Amino acid sequence: MSTVASDRLARQMRFLFEVDKLKEVQRRTRLPQSHRRENTAEHSWHLGIMALVVSEYAAPAGVDVFRVVRMLLIHDIVEIDAGDTFGYDTAGHADKRVREVAAADRIFGLLPDDQATEFRNLWEEFEAGETAEAKFALSMDRLQAVMVNYLSNGGSWREHQVTADRVLARNQVIAGGSPALWDFARGLIEDAVAEGNLLPGANR
Amino acid sequence: MSTVASDRLARQMRFLFEVDKLKEVQRRTRLPQSHRRENTAEHSWHLGIMALVVSEYAAPAGVDVFRVVRMLLIHDIVEIDAGDTFGYDTAGHADKRVREVAAADRIFGLLPDDQATEFRNLWEEFEAGETAEAKFALSMDRLQAVMVNYLSNGGSWREHQVTADRVLARNQVIAGGSPALWDFARGLIEDAVAEGNLLPGANR
Repeated sequence: MSTVASDRLARQMRFLFEVDKLKEVQRRTRLPQSHRRENTAEHSWHLGIMALVVSEYAAPAGVDVFRVVRMLLIHDIVEIDAGDTFGYDTAGHADKRVREVAAADRIFGLLPDDQATEFRNLWEEFEAGETAEAKFALSMDRLQAVMVNYLSNGGSWREHQVTADRVLARNQVIAGGSPALWDFARGLIEDAVAEGNLLPGANR
Repeated sequence: MSTVASDRLARQMRFLFEVDKLKEVQRRTRLPQSHRRENTAEHSWHLGIMALVVSEYAAPAGVDVFRVVRMLLIHDIVEIDAGDTFGYDTAGHADKRVREVAAADRIFGLLPDDQATEFRNLWEEFEAGETAEAKFALSMDRLQAVMVNYLSNGGSWREHQVTADRVLARNQVIAGGSPALWDFARGLIEDAVAEGNLLPGANR
């Protein structure tokens, strides 16, 4: 790396070089046009735009949208080391936290201490899911996956034979950030079943 | 689309469905690991993170970082219709503005009127490059391309035999948003020449 940079800037750029790798982390969702698997960087971009467009539906109202966007842009950076864990993979979720904490230590630790702490706290806030911002950010994350699967005619639901009852159970947390957006997501899930792109499942 | 949505929400979701296509727009830059071409959605994500990390180097100080991030997340959405125009493609730049304005009309026009105006204004602000936020956003855009080309051992510079004098000329606008980051970018460009990944060019 160039020698003109101060130590602080060098650490910041090292982090920005490192996070480039998030573009190589593949999710299970497939894009509607090319059917290639979506990567975590472009997924995170989509979440950022979503928060800008639909934050008026956050409940309670008055969520700090910039905080939500910051959270969404960084919430999956740990996947550079820990990989993406498929939402319907029960075994993978058993050690997800351990893998992701080690990743957070290493990757956020590349930053100068003040920013390492700031980003780590944002990530922990998202993971804890207690603040209004974290709840709304999680709503975006789940709604986006429903959207992309709906747009790709069932996508990873179809590929992994996930049933509608599991999709509904997994995504009902959207209501915790926005009842209006959960209504919308539920409509997409029901449409996917009606269109034959999602198996109805045992409970229906 | 689901029938439970209000007309407003339906328009917002239609826009969010549409912008998913930005993941399929390919840039000339290639990723360091897989060497596949970078897409515009993941590029936009990277810019958002960059602005969060290095906004302290913006000059003048006190730039509105959230405004910069919003601008960066949406600045390339027009490429869904207009395609990516390679930075060193002089012919492609001749009708770039016409193609992009038509795209902005169509794509931002999917949103409810208030948001269509808000996003269109942000895009026009970026394009005009006059405010401190627009200048810093452009710095991020250019610095990121330098970074990715540097990381991929010359990447699209090498592929298209672009010379260092052209790279320096194109990217010196980075100084308009941040002299410190332009110093850093210039260091990367010089390192790329020293490492044999960028042709020195006529002026050196």
